[in-house]
Amino acid sequence: MKKMSVTDVQAAEVPEPANGVKIRWLIDEKTGATNFAMRHFEIAPGGNTPLHSHRWEHEVFILSGRGVVTSNEGETEFGPGDAIWMPGGEEHNFRNTSPEPVTMLCLIPIDTTNK
Amino acid sequence: MKKMSVTDVQAAEVPEPANGVKIRWLIDEKTGATNFAMRHFEIAPGGNTPLHSHRWEHEVFILSGRGVVTSNEGETEFGPGDAIWMPGGEEHNFRNTSPEPVTMLCLIPIDTTNK
Repeated sequence: MKKMSVTDVQAAEVPEPANGVKIRWLIDEKTGATNFAMRHFEIAPGGNTPLHSHRWEHEVFILSGRGVVTSNEGETEFGPGDAIWMPGGEEHNFRNTSPEPVTMLCLIPIDTTNK
Repeated sequence: MKKMSVTDVQAAEVPEPANGVKIRWLIDEKTGATNFAMRHFEIAPGGNTPLHSHRWEHEVFILSGRGVVTSNEGETEFGPGDAIWMPGGEEHNFRNTSPEPVTMLCLIPIDTTNK
């Protein structure tokens, strides 16, 4: 068993075209995980992740803040306690429309994490 | 893209030997996920998950409440913002030692979810 707190893990700035986005890798293959990786994202007010797509799926859980996810479904509002499943191949981005940071978990299959 | 809120998803009581534990399946193969499943657990004050082990790993994120996880590392306290990785094969349980519910996400590989 390994335990780590969000506050123990160093945040890295996600480079452009992300805007105001920090990432923390909480659990990944370096932890010992073999199936999927848990990342923590923080999106500043007015910030957004890039509009992009990739072959792997996302599983997201919103911890705090409110915003809009853009996808094949158009624009969908999200807030704390929402889980979002984004299938592989679907274009998407997350935008913070609230005055506080959006914090969220975003999990991906481990075979995509060879950074 | 699919979005669901914790409050939209029906909770099921986890049978004994769990004690005071509710589960909500947020994302699984019925959603369309192919890699891993996201479940939301609620453990009542004084409640606990059973001490057990299985071949698959867990990735846990504590949303609220405080408690103790028992594992090969002995007893480890946890609280909000903690991520816990439990490798396959390690005996474990989660116990709520706080006066409020423990709520947490627990993710597992999808090939274990054929209920």
